[in-house]
Amino acid sequence: MLKRLALFTAILMFAFGATAEESKGKIMLVVHGGAGTITRKNMTPEMEQQYRATLEEAMRAGHAILAKGGTSLDAVEATIRLLEDSPLFNAGKGAVFTHEGKNELDASIMDGKTLKAGAVAGVTIIKNPITAARAVMEKSKHVLMVGRGAELFATKMGIEIVDPSYFWTERRWKSLQQELLKEEESSKPKAEVIPMFPDEKKYGTVGVVALDRDGNLAAGTSTGGMTNKMFGRVGDSPIIGAGTYADNHSCAVSATGDGEYFIRLGVARDIAALVAYRGMTVQQASDEVIHKKLQALGGTGGVIVLDAKGNFAMPFNSEGMYRGWIGEDGKANVLIYKD
Amino acid sequence: MLKRLALFTAILMFAFGATAEESKGKIMLVVHGGAGTITRKNMTPEMEQQYRATLEEAMRAGHAILAKGGTSLDAVEATIRLLEDSPLFNAGKGAVFTHEGKNELDASIMDGKTLKAGAVAGVTIIKNPITAARAVMEKSKHVLMVGRGAELFATKMGIEIVDPSYFWTERRWKSLQQELLKEEESSKPKAEVIPMFPDEKKYGTVGVVALDRDGNLAAGTSTGGMTNKMFGRVGDSPIIGAGTYADNHSCAVSATGDGEYFIRLGVARDIAALVAYRGMTVQQASDEVIHKKLQALGGTGGVIVLDAKGNFAMPFNSEGMYRGWIGEDGKANVLIYKD
Repeated sequence: MLKRLALFTAILMFAFGATAEESKGKIMLVVHGGAGTITRKNMTPEMEQQYRATLEEAMRAGHAILAKGGTSLDAVEATIRLLEDSPLFNAGKGAVFTHEGKNELDASIMDGKTLKAGAVAGVTIIKNPITAARAVMEKSKHVLMVGRGAELFATKMGIEIVDPSYFWTERRWKSLQQELLKEEESSKPKAEVIPMFPDEKKYGTVGVVALDRDGNLAAGTSTGGMTNKMFGRVGDSPIIGAGTYADNHSCAVSATGDGEYFIRLGVARDIAALVAYRGMTVQQASDEVIHKKLQALGGTGGVIVLDAKGNFAMPFNSEGMYRGWIGEDGKANVLIYKD
Repeated sequence: MLKRLALFTAILMFAFGATAEESKGKIMLVVHGGAGTITRKNMTPEMEQQYRATLEEAMRAGHAILAKGGTSLDAVEATIRLLEDSPLFNAGKGAVFTHEGKNELDASIMDGKTLKAGAVAGVTIIKNPITAARAVMEKSKHVLMVGRGAELFATKMGIEIVDPSYFWTERRWKSLQQELLKEEESSKPKAEVIPMFPDEKKYGTVGVVALDRDGNLAAGTSTGGMTNKMFGRVGDSPIIGAGTYADNHSCAVSATGDGEYFIRLGVARDIAALVAYRGMTVQQASDEVIHKKLQALGGTGGVIVLDAKGNFAMPFNSEGMYRGWIGEDGKANVLIYKD
């Protein structure tokens, strides 16, 4: 009887072109590349094309993993690695400079099935901080490791190490010089500084939330922090519950914006709590936190949120947020501006 | 008319022996000195007396501030400073050693009225990390600062700096040696290691939650981390939302225990969410998180929780937790064991 049922199922699946993997559950991947003062006015078609192409390529890498039954954790890591390798985003290669002219990177990742999590902060020689965060989660007994200790751990784990100069990009260096100049001249009447890139003044953090065929959620975030930040400052990206959270029973969240406000509100954890305890949809919960709570405190930024049924939301209260999603159909969707 | 009302009020207050300050709202301060394997069996009367006396002295310092109308933030900082200065607790002076034989300290503080927060992690030369955390909150634009950057900031702020050798204590050094020995001999048949102190194997983190006459809550936590922790590991104590949270609209929380589990659950933020979104009492909310969620993940520890009406709870799932409270009457209450 069971044999006949299996045969029948196999025939049905063949008839409808479905593989065993595809029949399990629907997949979804949502990405952000930072929120900030991103407007059509100060964006050239060439720049926009670069951002779109890189976001699409990164999403497709994650989608390919999910489509063949891979885990949401693998999809999150693969997508973020590509964004880290691009100089466009404030993460990995494109990290901004601290006040002292260094690049200090932060990243975190969380598994919605087990609530396991890993994070690194203030690292300067790890090419892909998201991979180091995953190693902390899977190969140490700790969740958060910072500075030299995190670097030694990553080195022992065989994770790719680079010279700090790898993170030097002309764009970010000029950005720091502009900020330093502004500080110096803050008592004089201000000349308007026109940023070279639309998001130059703020943010650029990247993040991914994903749902795999087994119904498991994962979330990850990676950043270079704030331009001109104080040496040793850690924002919300590596803080589980602030910049990143994932729980199959509520949702997966990755945030970008004024990190300090996101820590104070515990943005990612709060959105998950509103879904779990108030029965809100991911759209309602994230609107509540971004458009009411964050707005009331005076903070700016946005989040991507995804639940285990594939529902997602991408609210932000800044002028723009690089964002996109890719679902079962493999079509990569990218949005940048508010309207 | 108003004058007459004021006179009448003054007479009434005189008649009932109340000052203007005292008439405003009731005060409460709750403290913990760490959770762990603390049992009557391995506690001497002398040791117990030392712990009780130090906890009482620290609570009285905080109470004195609250009683004369001072802020909950001031009370939290003053109480924690005394616990940091004692070698008994794993915070400040009594901090445990990392695997490499160093002392790396973490602390955080949060203001329930404004949701402002400050934290330091991985600092090695700051005598009172809680004071550095408060300086980050009040004198920087950041929330969390780590390592050397945090130390430079504290130095600039005029906060007391000590040589790292200040944190060397024989007790904690021996504790590390025992752990290293256990690691070395982990393949051999194990000889039972008898700790010199009842809480030697785990924890000792200190924390305070307080309510002032203006109805404002504050929370703070300070720790030396885990004995034999990896260099660069950061636990839950400096993580706003994990080890510390305060919001006048829900409650103030300070946690102690297996830091990694507390980060993964976002313990402090979750308790506040259960109070705010589910309408639970602080006892119900903290029982839910400690006795159900933390227990289910396999973590050990406890929390102190206080709401703006002065209701408090102190649940833990370890064998004991140093804990106490002091209210309007100025009577310091200390508990150590489960029963």
